[in-house]
Amino acid sequence: MPIQDFKSVIDKYKIIFFDAFGVLKSYNGLVPGIERTFAYMEEQQKEYYIVTNDASRSPRQLAESYHRLGFEAIQHDRIISSGMLAKEYLDLKVNEGIVAYLGTHSSAHYIDSSGLHTLPVSAINQHNIDQVNALVLLDDEGFNWFDDLNKTVNILRKRTIPAIVANTDNIYPLSGSNEVSIAIGGIASMVESIVGKRFIRFGKPDSQMFMFAYDLIRERMTISKKEILMVGDTLHTDILGGNKFGLDTVLVLSGNTLPDDAETRIRSTGIVPTYVCTTAVVD
Amino acid sequence: MPIQDFKSVIDKYKIIFFDAFGVLKSYNGLVPGIERTFAYMEEQQKEYYIVTNDASRSPRQLAESYHRLGFEAIQHDRIISSGMLAKEYLDLKVNEGIVAYLGTHSSAHYIDSSGLHTLPVSAINQHNIDQVNALVLLDDEGFNWFDDLNKTVNILRKRTIPAIVANTDNIYPLSGSNEVSIAIGGIASMVESIVGKRFIRFGKPDSQMFMFAYDLIRERMTISKKEILMVGDTLHTDILGGNKFGLDTVLVLSGNTLPDDAETRIRSTGIVPTYVCTTAVVD
Amino acid sequence: MPIQDFKSVIDKYKIIFFDAFGVLKSYNGLVPGIERTFAYMEEQQKEYYIVTNDASRSPRQLAESYHRLGFEAIQHDRIISSGMLAKEYLDLKVNEGIVAYLGTHSSAHYIDSSGLHTLPVSAINQHNIDQVNALVLLDDEGFNWFDDLNKTVNILRKRTIPAIVANTDNIYPLSGSNEVSIAIGGIASMVESIVGKRFIRFGKPDSQMFMFAYDLIRERMTISKKEILMVGDTLHTDILGGNKFGLDTVLVLSGNTLPDDAETRIRSTGIVPTYVCTTAVVD
Amino acid sequence: MPIQDFKSVIDKYKIIFFDAFGVLKSYNGLVPGIERTFAYMEEQQKEYYIVTNDASRSPRQLAESYHRLGFEAIQHDRIISSGMLAKEYLDLKVNEGIVAYLGTHSSAHYIDSSGLHTLPVSAINQHNIDQVNALVLLDDEGFNWFDDLNKTVNILRKRTIPAIVANTDNIYPLSGSNEVSIAIGGIASMVESIVGKRFIRFGKPDSQMFMFAYDLIRERMTISKKEILMVGDTLHTDILGGNKFGLDTVLVLSGNTLPDDAETRIRSTGIVPTYVCTTAVVD
Repeated sequence: MPIQDFKSVIDKYKIIFFDAFGVLKSYNGLVPGIERTFAYMEEQQKEYYIVTNDASRSPRQLAESYHRLGFEAIQHDRIISSGMLAKEYLDLKVNEGIVAYLGTHSSAHYIDSSGLHTLPVSAINQHNIDQVNALVLLDDEGFNWFDDLNKTVNILRKRTIPAIVANTDNIYPLSGSNEVSIAIGGIASMVESIVGKRFIRFGKPDSQMFMFAYDLIRERMTISKKEILMVGDTLHTDILGGNKFGLDTVLVLSGNTLPDDAETRIRSTGIVPTYVCTTAVVD
Repeated sequence: MPIQDFKSVIDKYKIIFFDAFGVLKSYNGLVPGIERTFAYMEEQQKEYYIVTNDASRSPRQLAESYHRLGFEAIQHDRIISSGMLAKEYLDLKVNEGIVAYLGTHSSAHYIDSSGLHTLPVSAINQHNIDQVNALVLLDDEGFNWFDDLNKTVNILRKRTIPAIVANTDNIYPLSGSNEVSIAIGGIASMVESIVGKRFIRFGKPDSQMFMFAYDLIRERMTISKKEILMVGDTLHTDILGGNKFGLDTVLVLSGNTLPDDAETRIRSTGIVPTYVCTTAVVD
Repeated sequence: MPIQDFKSVIDKYKIIFFDAFGVLKSYNGLVPGIERTFAYMEEQQKEYYIVTNDASRSPRQLAESYHRLGFEAIQHDRIISSGMLAKEYLDLKVNEGIVAYLGTHSSAHYIDSSGLHTLPVSAINQHNIDQVNALVLLDDEGFNWFDDLNKTVNILRKRTIPAIVANTDNIYPLSGSNEVSIAIGGIASMVESIVGKRFIRFGKPDSQMFMFAYDLIRERMTISKKEILMVGDTLHTDILGGNKFGLDTVLVLSGNTLPDDAETRIRSTGIVPTYVCTTAVVD
Repeated sequence: MPIQDFKSVIDKYKIIFFDAFGVLKSYNGLVPGIERTFAYMEEQQKEYYIVTNDASRSPRQLAESYHRLGFEAIQHDRIISSGMLAKEYLDLKVNEGIVAYLGTHSSAHYIDSSGLHTLPVSAINQHNIDQVNALVLLDDEGFNWFDDLNKTVNILRKRTIPAIVANTDNIYPLSGSNEVSIAIGGIASMVESIVGKRFIRFGKPDSQMFMFAYDLIRERMTISKKEILMVGDTLHTDILGGNKFGLDTVLVLSGNTLPDDAETRIRSTGIVPTYVCTTAVVD
């Protein structure tokens, strides 16, 4: 596929959805020049949403992480994270009792829901296990893998409760290297396969992420899916999910998909973006 | 889980989503007494939607099939089928060329989209293969399996195009026996695995089915997900999908899930309905 | 990995195992010059075995197909096919009744076992289904896919019997084109997934294929695995299986693995041959 | 299936293969009365082999663990463990460099092979990573899961080397409770799926385990597979593997398969033992 100019592409759309990692920022910090894209969009009265499989922090904390890097344009109410869907699920479907979680204290804080008591898996014991009504896998940090993954398996063998995965990614890149770390989505697949139960997964490519953003927009304006563009660096999440939801999509080559591999990967996966651009930066 | 009275359950909700097969009808015809449920809902001013993984016919044809059985209450504009999502995808994402399909002529008719030319896979040849811009798997009938499945594999090896599966079911029951037939969803998984590409699947448990119905309702009224109930006979599609979308769910024991197995299956899958009822019939 | 000279490689071994398709022959006939390799081996008193996932014909018929192409050196008693393992299974494990099969009449002929009656799936009916004690998937030809695959699913739902897959390949190349055909291994995976039962698979990479050949050799001589080399064109079957059995392995680039892809595929699969050679031809 | 008397069953065979856990011992110690079975076999001049997916200790250490429980009849040279196959693989296929491992120091000790240097994954660093020529997953204990599983993923991304799994089990029971622990086989599947490479697995149901025992017997006597019986408590490993290798099989109900579930599990998996017995104890 031909490489297209990002500015010419976004000129055709009213609203732009961005993936975060590999598009706006990398493990080295911000993608250089990305602020120009947001300045241009504001000037052109285009709206943006950030649609991210990151359940480790709240939208407010995520926005602050951009501000600390000097990227002030990012507003927290334009960030849709898979963690928000996990929270909506708990609000709608779990009315009482304990929600056990794997993740940091900070990741758990923002799934707090009225009537529910969130507790780390490490705090579940024979006295409170019968009150556990849901289990949420939020983040790969904040717990002892050996102790708490084994405990998670045993909780799910004992209790017939929903298990919610708030981040479908298998790995994430580590700062300042080309190494990676196992993400909670990869751990979730292992636990799911071991207990033989079906987990509820939130995160791209699932449509619910896009629908959540789409609903927020429609509260304020009338919009057609034809006017929305999804920008991402990963075929299996951003592009597949955007396509399936009916959006036009741009694959950018600043993250998971390298310039040399793009053509081969598109052909071998059959996941075809509407456009391919080098980066999401407006020159 | 205790068996509850269906009437008492639906009394708590304003809108009821029904799966079709195993809930409203079976291979022997209508579920006896199901008309009473719809009469009661009309009297109580509750609305219904039928949310079905059936892409073999249009909603209008599906409605007529109920009318022929003497069940006049079913309106075609209250039927949401996975085929409608396939059509929406083509409308939004494929602008020109040929859409090749596997299925009956009738199943293909209603995915017709402006600017597109639908052709059965059997009609694809070396002269028109380069114009094929999408491939849709609609139904297990209407084509020669040996010839056309082999042809499908070769089309997808040659062309980098989206492959859309309009029915995620693996099997469906055959009339008047306890035998089954392989559904297009099962065939799709084989082809997907052989070509190694990622297909786009529409149908429960995917949220897009529920979102489509939810959007239709919100065009006419303000509603919360808390006021909607999903009724189905299959844990992996109806109940998992309804739960994930945030709806309360009823498992009925008139179809795929037998009364003797319900408890065991809920425990072993971890897919937990809000309620279990014998049938969707109001006594 | 560096490309090595095939003659220098085989000089280090006493016995050479060859895959058939992509190594000795292709859809265009024999690999040009392959007779020289066999002449050289005879001169050097090296022995060969052909280890093939082809259950469509008996070793005798397979040998004749080489003779017809003018390659007289191939002896039928040096051909080990996955179909032979299926036959051994029936001999050892099924004592009476009907063995139903999918495949050609010819493929079924050589699994005939004393005390057993082989019948095509199309001949199974309500009168004889209770005598069916095994089901063997042999070949993708010789039956009506729609009728007989649906019948196969229903036989396996009704009868608790072993289902044996005599060829694990998903596809095979078609003569005179770069098109492929779905093999019985691909069909078997669909049926297995639909009925939810565990099938018994014979064929590379499974060790039983290699063990069968190894046992034949040891009847005549004392040999160590270190003295045997496996030559194949496919990483997932020939090389993985040979490695796992403890043999040194050569990947040749005359079949499924193209010269441009070899490096990438070895790296991405982690399946590492001991050597890479252009072909199995001795210059 | 009817429950048969274990003594009458073994009377028909010359050699008996036993799984260890759930057949000879449980988390509470020896299966009561199991010594009588071994006394009877000695009296009747039947031979036994123990075929176990336990790579955490050497056969000698495993035998000693029985002796400590007062079960003196178990000889170490009659124990075939999946760890022995991992060792054979290293002996045959890896000639030099470092073998990195996950597991206890004790599990690593007995895979020591001439010319190789075994090091725990935790000891791999940027100075020695280029000498790592194989990675072996031996046991779930003896390492820090968070640190070393992440390190394992990065080693396998950097190095194109074989990864060997010496125990295919997903879970094992914990002493004195009905809780379980995640086994190295479950961890291996997660790592394999994350790095997208194909691992080499040793352990039942794979035939290589049975072949190893079968070869040992044939060194001393002439035997047919018809004279060997496999006794196990798990359908997916013991029974499937025994059947596939061509042996008659007994499912005992003293371990993983409970008396109430046996019938249902046999029917739903299609894995059919030749016999079902309550225990492997001769009364």
